[in-house]
Amino acid sequence: MNKQVNESEDFGAISKLNKWAEASPKEYRSAVRQEEWTDMSVHACHGYVQANLAIVPKDYAFEFLLFSNRNPRPFPVLDVTEPGDPHPKLVAPEADLRTDLPKYRVFQDGTLIDEPTDISSYWRDNLVAFVIGCSLSFDWALLAANLHYRMFGDYTTNIQCVAAGRFYGPMVVSSRAFRTARDAVRAIQISSRHLGVHGPPVHIGDPAIIGIKDLNEADVWIPPGPWPLTPLQPNETIAFWSTGAGLPVIAKACKVPFMITHCPGHMFVTDKLSEELAVL
Amino acid sequence: MNKQVNESEDFGAISKLNKWAEASPKEYRSAVRQEEWTDMSVHACHGYVQANLAIVPKDYAFEFLLFSNRNPRPFPVLDVTEPGDPHPKLVAPEADLRTDLPKYRVFQDGTLIDEPTDISSYWRDNLVAFVIGCSLSFDWALLAANLHYRMFGDYTTNIQCVAAGRFYGPMVVSSRAFRTARDAVRAIQISSRHLGVHGPPVHIGDPAIIGIKDLNEADVWIPPGPWPLTPLQPNETIAFWSTGAGLPVIAKACKVPFMITHCPGHMFVTDKLSEELAVL
Repeated sequence: MNKQVNESEDFGAISKLNKWAEASPKEYRSAVRQEEWTDMSVHACHGYVQANLAIVPKDYAFEFLLFSNRNPRPFPVLDVTEPGDPHPKLVAPEADLRTDLPKYRVFQDGTLIDEPTDISSYWRDNLVAFVIGCSLSFDWALLAANLHYRMFGDYTTNIQCVAAGRFYGPMVVSSRAFRTARDAVRAIQISSRHLGVHGPPVHIGDPAIIGIKDLNEADVWIPPGPWPLTPLQPNETIAFWSTGAGLPVIAKACKVPFMITHCPGHMFVTDKLSEELAVL
Repeated sequence: MNKQVNESEDFGAISKLNKWAEASPKEYRSAVRQEEWTDMSVHACHGYVQANLAIVPKDYAFEFLLFSNRNPRPFPVLDVTEPGDPHPKLVAPEADLRTDLPKYRVFQDGTLIDEPTDISSYWRDNLVAFVIGCSLSFDWALLAANLHYRMFGDYTTNIQCVAAGRFYGPMVVSSRAFRTARDAVRAIQISSRHLGVHGPPVHIGDPAIIGIKDLNEADVWIPPGPWPLTPLQPNETIAFWSTGAGLPVIAKACKVPFMITHCPGHMFVTDKLSEELAVL
């Protein structure tokens, strides 16, 4: 028997609660830069592309770019900065990647050494930043199509990314449980248009097939929302998308001497509208 | 008044004449490797992805990959080999990029120094090969949809690629003149699914807008077919797609100390079906 899922768990209902939902990317980034906002970026700046972040020394840049190319679902590259330049010229030329994300993770030899809200003190002339599309960018399109779904969390899977040089590691996925199978099918269609922000799901249905043992045990990220969520119901269809929340997992696995990522949930907001980057 | 366009000029009619049309990629590459075939790859291996080629020294690999990333229409990367390894593991692991293209172009400091049918003698341990999707891969899909069109040629345009490091240069386009506007619209839809082989056109209509002065003066490549073609007719709609035939143009412009490309029209045939790589 289906247990009633509370309407307040719906992603659309939650998105309306965010104080930054109607802000422009510039307003939002300014608040982040001044540390007025250090919380999650989820639901900020309605309609705009959010992005994950990876920063590596120049010596690792080719291999990381190749790793992204070989794994376009988890790591679709939107912009790559010149060495030492913190400004992403293609997607937000006025932004500064050292200050404009609410929270970062700094790794040394695969060990998390800091989780700062500003990385200016870590910046060096040889660092190259990769701005990588985030699937929260197509939630606007899903909600615009009146789809109803709940987000459970981000999980490490048993799918391995294709290695490139010194980069390898497991794929991490985000989850969306749709109220109906019809909504899940529509979400596959819509997200397929948004290839720059992960595109279509990598799996639908039984989480165990991709190595997720318990939906209540999200090991990479737990989204904001009313917890605990009602367990997945038989009438719901769950789908899993690759996510850049896997970047800290890669940094940890590969033991790169120095690497900075965003903190899951705390993304960069670009000046690009999701529709602007959609492939068709 | 419209002049009658000869049916024999139709791309579909021409494609049936090629002796390799029904060959498998393996059969075709074997013939090329043994130099039984050194002519164009156009129309070979029905349904399979054809690819352009760029080979640069390791020291230039990051900048070239970044150049490709910043210019996904002309240079969609399908595979990147490890330094010194001539086998494209993702798209045709048994193939050898030194011997399996009908014709190459070798550049030194931007000067064409050779146009060999085999580059084994030029191969070095520090070379990285980039396999780049070619739009001839989606002609199968256009023909399967019963579209009627003629291919005029490949032209240098006044559109500049986005530079990356030492790589820059003009965009080169291929051309397809459709018998009806309806066919042109359908071709835009179909090619949009094939992002890995240039995707949708970069221009439709007046060639002068992108700097093409005379359709009879294709400066980069002239396709096989009955020449001269009937001039473009008022009822036809012409569309222009980015093409990897621009790689020799880039090699020349950038004066890279050493770079090898395919010779326009003489592409690599992968083991991947066009439908296998289509994005939706």
